[in-house]
Amino acid sequence: MSSSYGKNVRLSIFGQSHSEGIGAVIDGLPCGEAIDMEEVAKFMQRRAPGRNAWSTPRKEADAPRIVSGLVNGVTCGAPLCMLIENSGMRSQDYDRLRNMPRPSHADYTATVKYKGFADMRGGGHFSGRLTAPLCFAGAVAKQILSRRGIEIGARICEIAGVQDRDEDEFLSAREKEFPVLCDAQGEKMRAAIEAARMDCDSVGGIVEVRAYGVPVGLGDPMFGGMENELSHWAFAIPAVRGIEFGAGFAAARMRGSEHNDTFTMEDGNVKTRTNNHGGILGGITSGMPVVMRVAFKPTPSIGREQDTVNLAEGTDAKLVIGGRHDPCIVPRAVPCVEAAMALAILDAMESGGYYGYAGMPRED
Amino acid sequence: MSSSYGKNVRLSIFGQSHSEGIGAVIDGLPCGEAIDMEEVAKFMQRRAPGRNAWSTPRKEADAPRIVSGLVNGVTCGAPLCMLIENSGMRSQDYDRLRNMPRPSHADYTATVKYKGFADMRGGGHFSGRLTAPLCFAGAVAKQILSRRGIEIGARICEIAGVQDRDEDEFLSAREKEFPVLCDAQGEKMRAAIEAARMDCDSVGGIVEVRAYGVPVGLGDPMFGGMENELSHWAFAIPAVRGIEFGAGFAAARMRGSEHNDTFTMEDGNVKTRTNNHGGILGGITSGMPVVMRVAFKPTPSIGREQDTVNLAEGTDAKLVIGGRHDPCIVPRAVPCVEAAMALAILDAMESGGYYGYAGMPRED
Amino acid sequence: MSSSYGKNVRLSIFGQSHSEGIGAVIDGLPCGEAIDMEEVAKFMQRRAPGRNAWSTPRKEADAPRIVSGLVNGVTCGAPLCMLIENSGMRSQDYDRLRNMPRPSHADYTATVKYKGFADMRGGGHFSGRLTAPLCFAGAVAKQILSRRGIEIGARICEIAGVQDRDEDEFLSAREKEFPVLCDAQGEKMRAAIEAARMDCDSVGGIVEVRAYGVPVGLGDPMFGGMENELSHWAFAIPAVRGIEFGAGFAAARMRGSEHNDTFTMEDGNVKTRTNNHGGILGGITSGMPVVMRVAFKPTPSIGREQDTVNLAEGTDAKLVIGGRHDPCIVPRAVPCVEAAMALAILDAMESGGYYGYAGMPRED
Amino acid sequence: MSSSYGKNVRLSIFGQSHSEGIGAVIDGLPCGEAIDMEEVAKFMQRRAPGRNAWSTPRKEADAPRIVSGLVNGVTCGAPLCMLIENSGMRSQDYDRLRNMPRPSHADYTATVKYKGFADMRGGGHFSGRLTAPLCFAGAVAKQILSRRGIEIGARICEIAGVQDRDEDEFLSAREKEFPVLCDAQGEKMRAAIEAARMDCDSVGGIVEVRAYGVPVGLGDPMFGGMENELSHWAFAIPAVRGIEFGAGFAAARMRGSEHNDTFTMEDGNVKTRTNNHGGILGGITSGMPVVMRVAFKPTPSIGREQDTVNLAEGTDAKLVIGGRHDPCIVPRAVPCVEAAMALAILDAMESGGYYGYAGMPRED
Repeated sequence: MSSSYGKNVRLSIFGQSHSEGIGAVIDGLPCGEAIDMEEVAKFMQRRAPGRNAWSTPRKEADAPRIVSGLVNGVTCGAPLCMLIENSGMRSQDYDRLRNMPRPSHADYTATVKYKGFADMRGGGHFSGRLTAPLCFAGAVAKQILSRRGIEIGARICEIAGVQDRDEDEFLSAREKEFPVLCDAQGEKMRAAIEAARMDCDSVGGIVEVRAYGVPVGLGDPMFGGMENELSHWAFAIPAVRGIEFGAGFAAARMRGSEHNDTFTMEDGNVKTRTNNHGGILGGITSGMPVVMRVAFKPTPSIGREQDTVNLAEGTDAKLVIGGRHDPCIVPRAVPCVEAAMALAILDAMESGGYYGYAGMPRED
Repeated sequence: MSSSYGKNVRLSIFGQSHSEGIGAVIDGLPCGEAIDMEEVAKFMQRRAPGRNAWSTPRKEADAPRIVSGLVNGVTCGAPLCMLIENSGMRSQDYDRLRNMPRPSHADYTATVKYKGFADMRGGGHFSGRLTAPLCFAGAVAKQILSRRGIEIGARICEIAGVQDRDEDEFLSAREKEFPVLCDAQGEKMRAAIEAARMDCDSVGGIVEVRAYGVPVGLGDPMFGGMENELSHWAFAIPAVRGIEFGAGFAAARMRGSEHNDTFTMEDGNVKTRTNNHGGILGGITSGMPVVMRVAFKPTPSIGREQDTVNLAEGTDAKLVIGGRHDPCIVPRAVPCVEAAMALAILDAMESGGYYGYAGMPRED
Repeated sequence: MSSSYGKNVRLSIFGQSHSEGIGAVIDGLPCGEAIDMEEVAKFMQRRAPGRNAWSTPRKEADAPRIVSGLVNGVTCGAPLCMLIENSGMRSQDYDRLRNMPRPSHADYTATVKYKGFADMRGGGHFSGRLTAPLCFAGAVAKQILSRRGIEIGARICEIAGVQDRDEDEFLSAREKEFPVLCDAQGEKMRAAIEAARMDCDSVGGIVEVRAYGVPVGLGDPMFGGMENELSHWAFAIPAVRGIEFGAGFAAARMRGSEHNDTFTMEDGNVKTRTNNHGGILGGITSGMPVVMRVAFKPTPSIGREQDTVNLAEGTDAKLVIGGRHDPCIVPRAVPCVEAAMALAILDAMESGGYYGYAGMPRED
Repeated sequence: MSSSYGKNVRLSIFGQSHSEGIGAVIDGLPCGEAIDMEEVAKFMQRRAPGRNAWSTPRKEADAPRIVSGLVNGVTCGAPLCMLIENSGMRSQDYDRLRNMPRPSHADYTATVKYKGFADMRGGGHFSGRLTAPLCFAGAVAKQILSRRGIEIGARICEIAGVQDRDEDEFLSAREKEFPVLCDAQGEKMRAAIEAARMDCDSVGGIVEVRAYGVPVGLGDPMFGGMENELSHWAFAIPAVRGIEFGAGFAAARMRGSEHNDTFTMEDGNVKTRTNNHGGILGGITSGMPVVMRVAFKPTPSIGREQDTVNLAEGTDAKLVIGGRHDPCIVPRAVPCVEAAMALAILDAMESGGYYGYAGMPRED
């Protein structure tokens, strides 16, 4: 339990990989917001499987059906419920795994926690498929934020050690099928993925997301900081192993004189010359772009035989995972990371503290 | 607002650097737990300033006074309130900073968010001093967990690029004045800190924390995962820029065959041969040690003149920060990171879901 | 926003009267619980409209479809999502009400709060129809509680001033079409309802709910008391105007010597001779039956012409509400009140504090 | 656990009757609000004991000390911590009660829940003394609300069956030592209290609270309704047995045509001619005065010998409660009820939804 989160804008995600459907309820969306469902579909398409060589061939229609919360495409203040019917499920692939937990999957921990009652067909509630409702909610949030001048985009930073280069506009990457800034580096990443696939292996990578146009003053000190919230949202994406903001782990090797972002006036506004702080100071947004990087482990499902245990018999065992799986989930994770950023920011914007301050604030 | 967190064990931290006092209320502690206040004091001493060359000379008595919640040193089920009286405050050091935000501090964002009403003397509610109540709460949590067979310890992983080596028992580091496993590397770190201090500069670093003896089944999928919770707690510590679990960012460069932790039976228990997953699979603890690393930026307060702005006049300005500050806060951050780990684990252990799962309660 | 509630067992309700569907997500249900859907349907049928003279003729199939969370009828630990497709909607009845708020309905306040974007067709998210998902969730909770020895039942206490009498077993009422203990009094209530209907008017009443078999120790002091929680759940039912526990408002006219429930040993257990405290002392259950009474106002939709305002023109206006409505919603509210009781108790039972206390969990 | 509540303005209350101190932390107060401590003290004095014939002779200094959150008497955005030192404790009065639970007190339930570790000296955390921090927080909230045009006042409605009459301005009662509108009826109530005291007995009563000037649009549908929130706050006051809004339980005996509050335009504003809805429709404030009535049981501590059990020996027993206690707590409960109302309204005003609605902040 805890498939719901958010203080003012609260997202509740339901469904298992092989249940009748999956979906989301978003409670607390501002009313009067037009939601362009084609744009939503386009966004969700970015994480959809089966589109190319590096993703699983399972085809998802992933057609989100609006059950409630919209009237003529506009939010009415009531909870927005979205449902995706499940189809194309091949449960038999997973039956023999019941007692043979896949290494680095949730099979073992879920089996223990839920005393054997967990629905692990296709990964159940732990499946990457559950990021579809997350992306739906993120798409909705992004449209609302965009109307307020906030644009969020992510790119693949690195796959299998191959790093993207900083070229072009940062936000241009999100439009691409393979979302990198430098397509040449992107080609090398694709090659690395293909090489892993040929080896019945998988690779990981890093996604960077930025939010532009974020006003000063979102977030709170201590437990309510934007980093606390952003990481709370982002770790909901399966396979995330690390998160950093601004200079991140590299900051640990910098000196203060190098890392400090000095202030300067720019067109009457306070700016920093550098952005090692990633747009967040003391948990509160500074008006500079919010920058987060998220590390993904290599897909745990690989074609090779692996050691595991037989839980029923209490013995060591060998396992070959059937079905086909993404040799690298990083490209499909890009919109998920955007979604996490969008939801964290929208939730913060809808908080009383923020409007209390900004709105513009009360004059008293 | 949001200086409180926790679902079942809820911590509320109050105080500003220069208010009359600082402290904490912990609501939801299990009853009947003896709290050894000498042990608490010893733990809090590990983060206390003024003890040595690398920390600020401000002396804190930091004597925590129990206001409520303990009867004869034993938790009685009512909220535990702890108060530290403030003393030795030199507010004049900060007066001139009112309109001159220190680079990479919360001065600017807090001033905007709180419309000029924020108490920024000594950093106010954003001060590192507020980690004292966090450590108090962590010390309490650690004692309770220790009684349940869970031991938590952290060490300095790296400072200024100098890395610790893996020697001895991991938990041995926490007992040391300079908590590293390899004292020789520790010497080099100290030298790097001293060099920065001589340069009127500062350095950052990385802390690694581990929890041993954690049972299988803590945490929940998706937003309730242990990573979500641990990072939510840990980002409450000032200066944290990144968090990773298990192999962390390095996982992004590994192949699945290398990263996957294969299962094996060991004395009738399911174990993994490696621990790249850092003791958490699908958000739920696996029974292997929980491993988190936390990156700290270099102390933003440095002795050098820095560029900033004058908020009152809307112009660029020069700033020299008076007072004396830690050239490196990493050593003092070590117990803070342990506290975050302890609180996240205790909160998860006290959740209904966990006991519900266990079918049986904790073994004590 | 705030159509979700619960700490450990969290219910999120979605849908508007005339949206595509309505439903619920329940997050945090214990796993391994078999849910008998026929029993659920039977329970939901008790609040379904159109069954008799005193309820609206709109027929609801109200067939709840399980979208997720059950595997072969057993809870698997993942959120349980239930969906009811909407049908038989006659929106035209409500179109002309857009600017003419119905007295004592939410039309006016919702219109202001949601800036005119609220979906008020059929009452929208404020419709009594939204108690169907509440009853679904309550039916699920009741089955789980029943397995733990807790039985919950309600009855009509009073309608239009006609009071039920205490006869038979209290729980026998819930099985009846018209749930009173004394059928003769029930006849008088029905007559009062019919009389109101003939007058194009409506009547209110009081529902009493009890939970038998509740263990000692559920609930917390102060804000976490069972009364706080029970009333928080129960006020989600439309038309509730008051709530009382045990002797309730009558306690205000009793003397302490009369009201105090003295303790006595009974078969080795501590009991009270009377139950003016309604099974709750200091917010915590005492082991005696939990007793709550809930007052319902008369249905605000009546056939008579009423005064209102025209919001568009800013003038006074006359309104005749079309469609047909329950002259008394009390009979259909009975299962809703049971649902609120069941959900509050299950949430409390699943809390860490409870199991923590028990030292021992449920026996299953 | 759960001595904290509130979504945006969160109150955490700590302390036991005989701990070193009691107090409160309020997290999320708007910044820039001047708090007049003399006015706070005056408000708290209204609930202080020992002032007259009907309250316990224990004298409390009840001098609230501000530990944090105010700078020069103005809220700075950081959590506001207030501490009251305990003194004048006579624990010996309670020692012999350890195994002899007082009827209709929390002694028995707390003993079971906290496995004998509960601090029940003087009622511990369950003591009416803990309403002092509640009143402190309420006093702070009232000042902030007053600045926004919202005035909250309560009166004694009824004691021992003697009812107040509606005379004068409703808010005038709160200024009186014995807060009723009709002093003649007040005299009769006092006589009834005195009569009970002479009989070593106690009496209960009803308090009515109203909030004037509340804007339209506070609160949310379903679980977030103002009734849900108000009752959640109000049941934190010990001895509350029932709560009703507007016409309340009397509504159950009215017909719709009588109960419905018809709308009318008044000076360009939408008003209702009557206020049976108590200022709340669909959980959302209507702009009419918010009206809540709260029923209090007679003080359970009475001078007479009572039956109870000896928990240690498992036998029936006789109990005479020593010390002196209020023969009626209703007069002192009046400010507590005002506090609950003020906190619920301030919390709702500070919510994102409210400002979100406005599209623009409050007009003040």
